[in-house]
Amino acid sequence: MSTNKGFIIWFTGLSGSGKTTIARILEKRVQAAGRHLESLDGDVVRTHLSKGLGFSKEDRDTNIRRIGYVGHLLQRNGVGVVCSAISPYRATRDELREMVGADFIEVYADCPLEICATRDGKVEMYAKAMRGEIKEFTGVSDPYEAPEKPELHLHTHQETPEESADRVMRYLVEHGYVAPVAVVAAAR
Amino acid sequence: MSTNKGFIIWFTGLSGSGKTTIARILEKRVQAAGRHLESLDGDVVRTHLSKGLGFSKEDRDTNIRRIGYVGHLLQRNGVGVVCSAISPYRATRDELREMVGADFIEVYADCPLEICATRDGKVEMYAKAMRGEIKEFTGVSDPYEAPEKPELHLHTHQETPEESADRVMRYLVEHGYVAPVAVVAAAR
Repeated sequence: MSTNKGFIIWFTGLSGSGKTTIARILEKRVQAAGRHLESLDGDVVRTHLSKGLGFSKEDRDTNIRRIGYVGHLLQRNGVGVVCSAISPYRATRDELREMVGADFIEVYADCPLEICATRDGKVEMYAKAMRGEIKEFTGVSDPYEAPEKPELHLHTHQETPEESADRVMRYLVEHGYVAPVAVVAAAR
Repeated sequence: MSTNKGFIIWFTGLSGSGKTTIARILEKRVQAAGRHLESLDGDVVRTHLSKGLGFSKEDRDTNIRRIGYVGHLLQRNGVGVVCSAISPYRATRDELREMVGADFIEVYADCPLEICATRDGKVEMYAKAMRGEIKEFTGVSDPYEAPEKPELHLHTHQETPEESADRVMRYLVEHGYVAPVAVVAAAR
């Protein structure tokens, strides 16, 4: 079983749905299983690759395509990558799936907006968005198009981030991206 | 000797100095030596990462930093990368060297402007630049700052692209990036 196969775990979901939290846990798990997981965070990438882009549909799409392009470069060189960006538009995500192929793993962090809006660090942002002080805010004043057939559908309000990370990890092992023996070690 | 060590071959030089031609030959040589060499071409990257950027100093710097950022992501994951972009400003290249460290291999494709301006596909461009029809053209109306201590200094008007590629290949072998036995095979 190859454990050098590149892959992209593509998190999608509302702000506050747990994407980044789960990604951080996952990084540690994958590391413990003997692989490095390279993280392309939506905000980090904005700094390095997309400074100057705004939050219009076009600019968001450009940002997502750039993350996807860089993720694909890494993945096709055998690197494991996790991307956590809201990535609200279905068609753009499907474009990336098309580009990457079978090693594109779409993970939907599904959490009701009302719960996202109460989470640590998100309360003020959602409140501002609801008062119209932040324009084009996904889920409030801008659409979020949920995936129709994600590889994994996580209900992040019904499970802990650790449980969510476990599910992704299980997927990686079952599909030969991470060696199974290491999972046991990581779970200890 | 490790042959999974990531590296960045950073070509710099005027338009027409042979950067891309040598990079293409190098890709095949490295491939024949059993490694993949990922190519980040200045123009290709402009399409995917820097659409909308112009040729002002600031925009050029942004483009080069983006190529460098992506190259670094690949290199630190054990990938061999070749970048061929004019990258005219010394300080920007030195920033990349600082970021990447010892695995940054600056290769200066040194060729007199008069010769670059006569090369295939470059004649019309240089003529336009000299007539002022293309603004901010490196070497004509925009500065080119030659490297002071490049890892390799190629005189591309005095050697063939194959000879230049040989020199880079020799560097890669000597520094443990490519297995020596494979060089023999590639040279057959």
